[in-house]
Amino acid sequence: MLTGNRNWNLLSWIKTLSDFQITLSTSAEAVNLTLERLLKMHDDPEAELIEAMRYAVLDGGKRIRPFLSLASAGLFNVEPERALRVAAAIEMVHCYSLVHDDLPAMDDDDLRRGQPTCHIKFGEATAILAGDALLTKAFEVLAGDDTHPDPHVRSDLVMALARAAGPEGMVGGQMLDLIAERETLNMPEITRLQRMKTGMLIAVACEAGAILGKATDGARHALHAYAHDLGLAFQIADDLLDVEGDEKTVGKKTGKDEEAGKATFVSLLGVERARAQAALLVDQACEHLDLFAEKADSLRDLAAFVIKRRA
Amino acid sequence: MLTGNRNWNLLSWIKTLSDFQITLSTSAEAVNLTLERLLKMHDDPEAELIEAMRYAVLDGGKRIRPFLSLASAGLFNVEPERALRVAAAIEMVHCYSLVHDDLPAMDDDDLRRGQPTCHIKFGEATAILAGDALLTKAFEVLAGDDTHPDPHVRSDLVMALARAAGPEGMVGGQMLDLIAERETLNMPEITRLQRMKTGMLIAVACEAGAILGKATDGARHALHAYAHDLGLAFQIADDLLDVEGDEKTVGKKTGKDEEAGKATFVSLLGVERARAQAALLVDQACEHLDLFAEKADSLRDLAAFVIKRRA
Repeated sequence: MLTGNRNWNLLSWIKTLSDFQITLSTSAEAVNLTLERLLKMHDDPEAELIEAMRYAVLDGGKRIRPFLSLASAGLFNVEPERALRVAAAIEMVHCYSLVHDDLPAMDDDDLRRGQPTCHIKFGEATAILAGDALLTKAFEVLAGDDTHPDPHVRSDLVMALARAAGPEGMVGGQMLDLIAERETLNMPEITRLQRMKTGMLIAVACEAGAILGKATDGARHALHAYAHDLGLAFQIADDLLDVEGDEKTVGKKTGKDEEAGKATFVSLLGVERARAQAALLVDQACEHLDLFAEKADSLRDLAAFVIKRRA
Repeated sequence: MLTGNRNWNLLSWIKTLSDFQITLSTSAEAVNLTLERLLKMHDDPEAELIEAMRYAVLDGGKRIRPFLSLASAGLFNVEPERALRVAAAIEMVHCYSLVHDDLPAMDDDDLRRGQPTCHIKFGEATAILAGDALLTKAFEVLAGDDTHPDPHVRSDLVMALARAAGPEGMVGGQMLDLIAERETLNMPEITRLQRMKTGMLIAVACEAGAILGKATDGARHALHAYAHDLGLAFQIADDLLDVEGDEKTVGKKTGKDEEAGKATFVSLLGVERARAQAALLVDQACEHLDLFAEKADSLRDLAAFVIKRRA
């Protein structure tokens, strides 16, 4: 098994790669394999559920959240197998949220990363269940002995992910997003919405490495602060893609926010100021990493990548 | 606080009540209060999400699963506050599954316990999110320090609930239920479907008391075996209600299975044999409780209640 070789540490090796695209793709591949193993196909009559879960997670995403977990775990010399399980669990939660978000009653999207969305492919009922199952499975993975021998760590991971994904986090942010369709939000409201909807999951992906590594509070807070700024930069970049991106490259419908009359960072700030703000946030994010010195270079690279990406 | 009085133990007291209806209602009330406290209303703009979550859980259900947790925890002298948190978490999972099950893409039900279903009241998008949020919140509650000081117990509870509720449990059973609409299942297939769809959550509700009480494997297995038989008896009783029940008393549409052409225990066995089978299962369930002697009387009462209920 790729990550099981005791003489070779994936996380250390990834840190030595100089080309960030290779680094990101390599870790994405390890995450994909981990997801495949955690979601094994079987012959039982309900196999279609697993098929839909796999379809929803194994779709060639960039795996930015898992990368954050792997890179932050690397700071504390966490065993790669453990970091990969946590990275996979967080990606399951991210993907379940996309499946439910794409449903006709929600954003009603037919395309995701250039492919039919889960409900287009498997039907609405199966897509709802596949989302539910991915969310549940994520917690099973975190609570599993293989994630960490210390139950305190496992229980902390569950708590952190549940808070980030629940009504005070991601789902609360999606609720705000529904409200944003009928009410025009101002800048602080949009910032809060985005922090909840995407920022908190990004933050927990980063903090997970610190939890796994039993890092000091200082290190954990530094990663949280980094992730907080990164999350906003990420969202501004997403809003810019929705305005400027090409549907084919982005792999989903663009111009949606404007069409829905939703206020975004870009509609409130304009393209130029939004771009400047994202760059500023990335600089700020990286400053929080100073205490890790060059060990955190891959997190700095990711921050730079996030605002340069074209999809 | 009702359950915080150190001189008075709710679980011990409940065991002394001779009228089972009072016992069940009393413990349901304690569960309701716990749910209300865990799902506090707030003034944030996304409050509608909490409102929908509360609507979905605080609807006067019989709280059979929470009762199982409380009664099984009582066997091991678990502190009532801890048992109530676990009972509430399991009920959140049960209620989230009802919210998603009632959606137009799933069973398309307008009524639940005599009230408009969550999506009728709050709209489909909010109902989907409320279900997601309840599921996530359940894991947050289990992982919380207040649930048990030993992180091993918290992590075990998360694992047990995730397995029972996930693709190999409840959600897998719901997938089978969708398949049952287009394929006629035979007796072993129906049994497997029901074990997954309702039996596993009932089993984890029972086992949770043993996990909280750090019970022996023998005690845990006995509770599991009890719950296994109880779960099937419960489902047969449900099928009988669907055939014989009065819509007004049952509080939801009846005759649905027949209309959908779904095979059930009743359609396969006929009313008389199904009733006899349920009674047999209840006797069998109670035999597994022998090692607890009279301490398990409330679990025996519940088993008897389950097949006598009219709603």
